[in-house]
Amino acid sequence: MKRGAFITVEGVEGVGKSTCLAAIERSLRESGRPVLVTREPGGTTLGERVRELILDEHEGGLSGPIEALLIFAARARHLQRIIVPALADGRWVVCDRFTDATYAYQGGGRGVDRHALEVMAQMVQEGLEPDLTLLLDAPVEVGLQRISEREHDRFEKENFSFFERVRRSYLEIAARAPQRVRTINADRPLDDVTGELLKVLQQFIAEFTGAAR
Amino acid sequence: MKRGAFITVEGVEGVGKSTCLAAIERSLRESGRPVLVTREPGGTTLGERVRELILDEHEGGLSGPIEALLIFAARARHLQRIIVPALADGRWVVCDRFTDATYAYQGGGRGVDRHALEVMAQMVQEGLEPDLTLLLDAPVEVGLQRISEREHDRFEKENFSFFERVRRSYLEIAARAPQRVRTINADRPLDDVTGELLKVLQQFIAEFTGAAR
Repeated sequence: MKRGAFITVEGVEGVGKSTCLAAIERSLRESGRPVLVTREPGGTTLGERVRELILDEHEGGLSGPIEALLIFAARARHLQRIIVPALADGRWVVCDRFTDATYAYQGGGRGVDRHALEVMAQMVQEGLEPDLTLLLDAPVEVGLQRISEREHDRFEKENFSFFERVRRSYLEIAARAPQRVRTINADRPLDDVTGELLKVLQQFIAEFTGAAR
Repeated sequence: MKRGAFITVEGVEGVGKSTCLAAIERSLRESGRPVLVTREPGGTTLGERVRELILDEHEGGLSGPIEALLIFAARARHLQRIIVPALADGRWVVCDRFTDATYAYQGGGRGVDRHALEVMAQMVQEGLEPDLTLLLDAPVEVGLQRISEREHDRFEKENFSFFERVRRSYLEIAARAPQRVRTINADRPLDDVTGELLKVLQQFIAEFTGAAR
C-alpha cells in the first residue's frame, strides 16, 4: 500500500490556521481519503508532559535551546507513535505546525542556531519531510489584531518584533523550498484564503496521487 | 575573581564513582576550596521533571534520540541555574557524570549519531568544557558484579554488550582528549583507586591554580 501524504500548515498567530485546517480536512474527507488531523504534542503522554513543561511559566522562562530540545523530543514521539504509523497505514496526515515552526519561532524568533535545529530535525525525522506545507502569511499587525480577543498564551505575549522575525523566517523557508512550501496570502477575507488554499490542495492531490501510480 | 575549576567524574556502573566523588570533595574542602558537588538533574525543577520522564518505564521505552534531547534539555538548565553561576562565583564544581556520559550511553550504547550529540553539546555548553574529567575504568563484568546487590534502574538492566559499548566509547573519548580526560584503573581495591585519583587531582590543582595566576 502506498503511504499517505504528509501535509503541514504553518503561520503566525491570527492568520486563520484553524479555519484552514478544518477546510482541508473536509475537502480530503469529501474526496474519500482517510485523514488524520493532528498537532503537536499529538496526544502522546511524553508530548503532553513536555508541553506542560514548556508552557509552565513557573519555570521562569526557558532559553531558546531548551525549548528547541524539548520540542524535538515531543516531535520525535509524535512521529514515532502517531504520524509515521498513520502514513504507513495509508492515511493522509494534516499537521498543525511542524519543524518549520521551530525554525521560525526558536530559530528566527529566539535566535537558536539554525544548523543545530537542522541536525535535530534530521535526527528525529530520519528523512521524513512534509510532502506539502501550506504557509498562511499576513502582516504581523493583521494577525495580532485578530487574536486580540482570545486568551493569550506565552508566545502570543511576545512582542511585535519577535513576530516580525518569525514571519520573515517563514518566508525565507518558503523561498528556499518553493516546491514543498506554498505561501497563501492570508491578508484577505477568510473565504478567499480558504478558496486559494483548496485550489493549491487539489493541485497537490493530483500531483501526489498521479506521481504515485 | 577567577572562576572555579569544573571537574567531572565518569564511568560505568559499579566502578566506585560514589566513593571517588566523596574523596574528591573531602580533598578539595581540606585544601580550603569552596566546592559544589552536583549531578544531573542537579535539583532544577525542569531537570527533575525530565528525569522522571526518562526513568518512567510506563513510557514504554524511549528511543535514543528522545533520551538525548531530554538529557541535553536538563543539562542546559543545570548549567544555567547551578554550574555556571557556581563557577563564576569562584566555586569548584564536581559533577557526577556530564556530556561524556551522553556520548558513551546514548552514542556508543544506543547508537545516536555522534555529530548530532556534538552539536547539541555545543548548543547547551556554549564553549564550557570540563577542565578535568576523571574516568574510572574497569572491565564491565567487574562493575556489574559490584552492583549486583543494589537496586537496578533502567540503565543497569541493559545487557552486557550495551555496557561493553559504553566502556569502549569512554575509552575512545579519553584517547581523543588525553589532556582533559585522565583514566584511572578502577579494577583494584577502592583505596588504591582513590589513592591514584587524589594524586591526579593534586597535580591538576597545581596546574590549574598555577596557570591561573
